[in-house]
Amino acid sequence: MNNKAIGVFDSGLGGLTVVKEIMKILPDEKIVYLGDTARTPYGTKTKGTIIRFSAENTNFLLKKNVKTVVVACNTASALALNEIKKKFGINIIGVIDAGARAAVAATENKRIGVIGTKATIGSGIYEKTIRKYNPDIKVFSNPAPLLVPLVEEGWLDRQETAGILKYYLEPFKGKKIDTLVLGCTHYPLLKPLIRRIMPDVNVIDSGKETAAVVSNLLIMKNQVAKKGNSKTSAFYVTDTPSAFNRVGAMFLKGSMIKAKKITL
Amino acid sequence: MNNKAIGVFDSGLGGLTVVKEIMKILPDEKIVYLGDTARTPYGTKTKGTIIRFSAENTNFLLKKNVKTVVVACNTASALALNEIKKKFGINIIGVIDAGARAAVAATENKRIGVIGTKATIGSGIYEKTIRKYNPDIKVFSNPAPLLVPLVEEGWLDRQETAGILKYYLEPFKGKKIDTLVLGCTHYPLLKPLIRRIMPDVNVIDSGKETAAVVSNLLIMKNQVAKKGNSKTSAFYVTDTPSAFNRVGAMFLKGSMIKAKKITL
Repeated sequence: MNNKAIGVFDSGLGGLTVVKEIMKILPDEKIVYLGDTARTPYGTKTKGTIIRFSAENTNFLLKKNVKTVVVACNTASALALNEIKKKFGINIIGVIDAGARAAVAATENKRIGVIGTKATIGSGIYEKTIRKYNPDIKVFSNPAPLLVPLVEEGWLDRQETAGILKYYLEPFKGKKIDTLVLGCTHYPLLKPLIRRIMPDVNVIDSGKETAAVVSNLLIMKNQVAKKGNSKTSAFYVTDTPSAFNRVGAMFLKGSMIKAKKITL
Repeated sequence: MNNKAIGVFDSGLGGLTVVKEIMKILPDEKIVYLGDTARTPYGTKTKGTIIRFSAENTNFLLKKNVKTVVVACNTASALALNEIKKKFGINIIGVIDAGARAAVAATENKRIGVIGTKATIGSGIYEKTIRKYNPDIKVFSNPAPLLVPLVEEGWLDRQETAGILKYYLEPFKGKKIDTLVLGCTHYPLLKPLIRRIMPDVNVIDSGKETAAVVSNLLIMKNQVAKKGNSKTSAFYVTDTPSAFNRVGAMFLKGSMIKAKKITL
């Protein structure tokens, strides 16, 4: 038993889709969330910068005395996970591995598509991880850089969003994929549109899969919080919280957020 | 005469549209440019954060021994210009005033529209500045947050961009504006599309106007560089330069850029 909080960080809002899934399957856990909204987005930036930001975020969460850190950002998981694991030597969980494994389990024709930020796709990590589990699988990747700003704007079902999504997804049709990995924690909010464009494809939401990994790890290490643990989750951001609080409610499907501003 | 460089900073690439105009009318001047690409964009962030970033950028340029600093970013000009002027007490030129004055000069029916980032529009600065010059003018403002990512992606004439622009510009048609201020240094790259949507409107590019202000100031203070001044402009960025160099060439219409990475 361990009533300490689970630390979660993201470049901004996207990681809240992971928090939502963790809260669903681990209702007694307290969350300490950090959204690096002053420096968001990470997906257009490069490795050295992403490692520096991720290390600062992890450091902040460790000072809040968390029992584990979830990197709820595909870009940071893709480019900085190994480095921060090495640096901090504690339980750190990324979102890539869980999503990749779920995709391997889901595909029948061994053809998987992945969309993500430029940094995530450029790192080649999904292809590498998926093929580690099954080298016979063909992986097709496409960066989708405009989706994060569209989600941040709440343009979840506009015609222009559908047009941009089609542009990013169309190339997968010719590749005959049967499984699509949403390789960015913002994208689950676009699931209804994605399903409309690719109705016959398994859609893998790495946030959901990661929550299951967190749960398994806590059970395995006997670190689950006590049932009925009195908990108040805490949210921190590096820019003024007003927009985070407002749009964050959309990510958490209506739960109230009252984030505090901090400087890293 | 003064052969020191002109310092220019922006949150990223947009300020290069201002640099292009300065180079055009002041061909003997050397430029030291700083693009804060690790923390871009600024337009979705808030005042305290934008002031902190702008002060750090100004400080960097002053260490490079520049004779003046141009804040080539509407968001930083809107929210941080007064603060950094106070803090550093040197010649600092923003982009708002020049654009506002040009719009006042251009309008005939005294109805002006402004598009910009959320932070710029939220500050109300264009309305305030325009009405300082002529309180009879009606100003209509609309934030256009998706335009920066579209420009950064080079989606300058795609159908989706036209659709999104129409969404932002449509409200101005009912207001019968005759002049539109492009209140963000990224937007001049969208001028062809904007003219197609609003063919009968004066389009004010604050970068162009700001270059004229810089020129006037240097002449007035007798700080123009010597004719034939041997000059090599320098570009600095806070993230890895590769994308900046590539997309920057589009902003500067083909000039080569070789930026150096620095940490602030």
